[in-house]
Amino acid sequence: MSAMDMTNLTGAALLGSRDLTGAATFQAIDPATGTALEPAFFEAGPAEVGQAAALAAQAYPLYRATTPEARAAFLDAIAGKIEALGDTLIARAARETGLPVARLTGERARTTGQLRLFASWVRAGGADEPRLDSALPERTPLPRADLRLRHIGLGPVVVFGASNFPLAFSVAGGDTASALAAGCPVIVKGHPAHPGTSELVGRAIRAAVVEAGLPEGVFSLLTGTSNELGGALVADPRIKAVGFTGSRGGGLALCRIAASRPEPIPVFAEMSSINPVFLLPAALEARAEALAAGFVGSLTMGAGQFCTNPGLVIAMAGPALDRFIAAAATAVSAAPAATMLTPGIAGAYGKGVAALAEQPEVTELAHGGEGGVNACRPALFVTDAAAFLREPLLSHEVFGASSLVIRCADEAEMAAVAAALEGQLTATLHLEAADHALAARLLPVLEDKAGRILANGWPTGVEVCHAMVHGGPFPATSDPRSTSVGTLAIRRFLRPVCYQDLPDALLPAAVQAGNPLGLPRLVDGTPASIGETRP
Amino acid sequence: MSAMDMTNLTGAALLGSRDLTGAATFQAIDPATGTALEPAFFEAGPAEVGQAAALAAQAYPLYRATTPEARAAFLDAIAGKIEALGDTLIARAARETGLPVARLTGERARTTGQLRLFASWVRAGGADEPRLDSALPERTPLPRADLRLRHIGLGPVVVFGASNFPLAFSVAGGDTASALAAGCPVIVKGHPAHPGTSELVGRAIRAAVVEAGLPEGVFSLLTGTSNELGGALVADPRIKAVGFTGSRGGGLALCRIAASRPEPIPVFAEMSSINPVFLLPAALEARAEALAAGFVGSLTMGAGQFCTNPGLVIAMAGPALDRFIAAAATAVSAAPAATMLTPGIAGAYGKGVAALAEQPEVTELAHGGEGGVNACRPALFVTDAAAFLREPLLSHEVFGASSLVIRCADEAEMAAVAAALEGQLTATLHLEAADHALAARLLPVLEDKAGRILANGWPTGVEVCHAMVHGGPFPATSDPRSTSVGTLAIRRFLRPVCYQDLPDALLPAAVQAGNPLGLPRLVDGTPASIGETRP
Repeated sequence: MSAMDMTNLTGAALLGSRDLTGAATFQAIDPATGTALEPAFFEAGPAEVGQAAALAAQAYPLYRATTPEARAAFLDAIAGKIEALGDTLIARAARETGLPVARLTGERARTTGQLRLFASWVRAGGADEPRLDSALPERTPLPRADLRLRHIGLGPVVVFGASNFPLAFSVAGGDTASALAAGCPVIVKGHPAHPGTSELVGRAIRAAVVEAGLPEGVFSLLTGTSNELGGALVADPRIKAVGFTGSRGGGLALCRIAASRPEPIPVFAEMSSINPVFLLPAALEARAEALAAGFVGSLTMGAGQFCTNPGLVIAMAGPALDRFIAAAATAVSAAPAATMLTPGIAGAYGKGVAALAEQPEVTELAHGGEGGVNACRPALFVTDAAAFLREPLLSHEVFGASSLVIRCADEAEMAAVAAALEGQLTATLHLEAADHALAARLLPVLEDKAGRILANGWPTGVEVCHAMVHGGPFPATSDPRSTSVGTLAIRRFLRPVCYQDLPDALLPAAVQAGNPLGLPRLVDGTPASIGETRP
Repeated sequence: MSAMDMTNLTGAALLGSRDLTGAATFQAIDPATGTALEPAFFEAGPAEVGQAAALAAQAYPLYRATTPEARAAFLDAIAGKIEALGDTLIARAARETGLPVARLTGERARTTGQLRLFASWVRAGGADEPRLDSALPERTPLPRADLRLRHIGLGPVVVFGASNFPLAFSVAGGDTASALAAGCPVIVKGHPAHPGTSELVGRAIRAAVVEAGLPEGVFSLLTGTSNELGGALVADPRIKAVGFTGSRGGGLALCRIAASRPEPIPVFAEMSSINPVFLLPAALEARAEALAAGFVGSLTMGAGQFCTNPGLVIAMAGPALDRFIAAAATAVSAAPAATMLTPGIAGAYGKGVAALAEQPEVTELAHGGEGGVNACRPALFVTDAAAFLREPLLSHEVFGASSLVIRCADEAEMAAVAAALEGQLTATLHLEAADHALAARLLPVLEDKAGRILANGWPTGVEVCHAMVHGGPFPATSDPRSTSVGTLAIRRFLRPVCYQDLPDALLPAAVQAGNPLGLPRLVDGTPASIGETRP
């Protein structure tokens, strides 16, 4: 299939190798103008779920039996085919999301880099994680059997495309990459805000499936506007896990559906985070204005539509904080409005900012310039710690470029604010050497609250690597034991299987004698070198 | 505290360092005689849960901050103090459970071995699992920050003691050992069938807590007979995970409570498994009688009260199967009755066997000798594959020494039985070289059904090691991504935390420059040698 064929939007749902169309359709909205975009897309619903799940279940035993190299090559091929879509993909994504071309170009690089990182991790044994314990036939009172463990994919996985990362957390995003890397077929529930972007990427994945000779059910894409579509996908008995990024309400609804199935399944929902930033006294004194500039840059980036957007700034009251506030207010006032992803998100942002402004103990410090339809005007508020500790509404996420400064009377109040926080994706400390003692007291509390702790940086910008954690205690996620970014994310979709005394010929290659796949293996509790053939 | 003091049963609940007593009490029953045993034990209930959870929450930040060496030494000390209880522990456990002294002596060795294995695993970095990604300040378009990941304990964990392993899966059993190894305080909900055994072991753990200078809330033991006690423990907001071994109904009830909390938490429930054993044709032909002897030995061991008891035998109809059946029936007829753990379990066994016997398409092949009060008479049944595939009741676990032989007409029927199985802890193949082709066809199905696959062995007897999986798809467990036996079990109770650009002085030792703890670490995606100090 040529790149040209692949970029010809049809509006079809991708059911394995088959295009599905029908009478019910919806269209994407260009959020910058509020106008509908061509073409019309098939509105997938519960009726299509059964077909996609059946294909995925059929593909699962074949797909999970692929070698690490075959799976890695498939992931690499997806990356290549996304790149081959060229400017068409970026242009369509920009129309559907209102995000700037430069941002989307960077996001595409993150998406393909993510696929290739998972490919390298699968090649390095990160999916199989084999462990071997040698037989001890002479042991008394009982001999020990030969025991070998490897991990396999859980089964078909449903991935919900996120609106705010139309490439990196949508059809071929982090959840899809990690589930495919684990050996799980994927059904993507496409986000209805960017169906064209989704179809383009979905066709790239389908082309890679065909080229690799994999069963068609390894990948399907169903896009629709109804909650029933997502609910039916999570409820289908053939689905074994779910990846979701979105609202707290949406994530919890899926968790409830998954928990009430006859066979409950895990839902990895990344939901809500306000990403507190602590400006410690010496750092604030030394560089209040520079901190304000960095803060407003992070706050307004991408119209504030990041899960890691800094929605809370905590500092001690005093002249240094006044300097920070003055500089931040000036920068926010000068910040232009920016188009948000959807009319719904823009509407919710407006309501969230209005609700904050109405709070009696909250003062609006600044707002950014007016914008067109569906625009986000950046907004900055201030309150004091006592009010924050009293009023739960002040902890709610306002998705977009709004932030609240918390003025603390003293270190005890700052510690009390930290202790009162809900679970977060990130917590940030700005500090100098003189702040280390205070930071050391806050750190144990922040470790209990957040998946990632930063010093002297800003939480937006999530590196895709081995040591990343994009996760955290509830309600940041539904399961703090995992991450949705970075290679550790693969563990969400794997389960261990142990083989006891199986003849070598019947063992999977990952745990066979002679280590034919050349994977790193834990042998009798010790990492064995790759060349190691024992036992 | 001398060993004598430690073995003086008081009937108290152990709330941290405090003994709790009260008016409401219950007594253990000697199942061999049906008589109540002294002393009376305090009936803990929801009122005590809040106190234990508060202590555990208070202990958590201090306990999770202990070094791997400190935590390992604590686990080693618990093992030593259990051994120091000597014959007193075995004698009390034998009275309360009806299990033979030899079995309990072996189980004690498994229990202390398990604690020491987790100690060695924590020393080897199995709790922290550190990962470091180096900063790339020159990278374009954006530099990479310095990123370091380690794992920390999730928080206070509730462990439900199991009736069938009064030592190895009770107060200081596998769930407790793995949770303590992970850095989580533990509240044990003691099983009311062996409260004296529980108190003895609980006091051993308390003594180790005191000796190690750890906060008292690291361990509490609440024993009671009500469902409300367990429900209140799972519902308490300070509890962050649950380990359970027991019935399907009990496990699912706890899962529902955990899922409906404002903050849902994971429940690792090991529930129900009938552990299918496939006798492949060449093996059956070669050694039908030896297989029958091995099978009945595994079936009747410990009155069949193992999670891995072989409750289903699947083979092709024919003369070889007839030989197996004849030999197994003779062995079962000769098998003595054995005391079961509790009157409730004995009653349920009797009902389960009676229900099987009443099935029109099931034939009773043999039953063992009559026994005294609460005795289990081993029982063997046969049916054909078509009946098994039609009647769901035939797949239900009968906890005890009862098993059902499934006669298959051909390989297709054998494969259909395999495909119809629910999730299992184990699946076993007895095979010869001539059976490899059939085994290779069955294996992918069995991998989807079971956590452990054995060849030419029996599923009872679970090795505690690195490559063990004691887990499996629902309903064997509530989460197939984990195991409750072996060092991999520690991952259930850990969560990753990432540190971005933190000054070395503020980093936890596990990820500091210079690797002061000497742990194996993944550096830029590659295992670094322990001496490695970069980055």
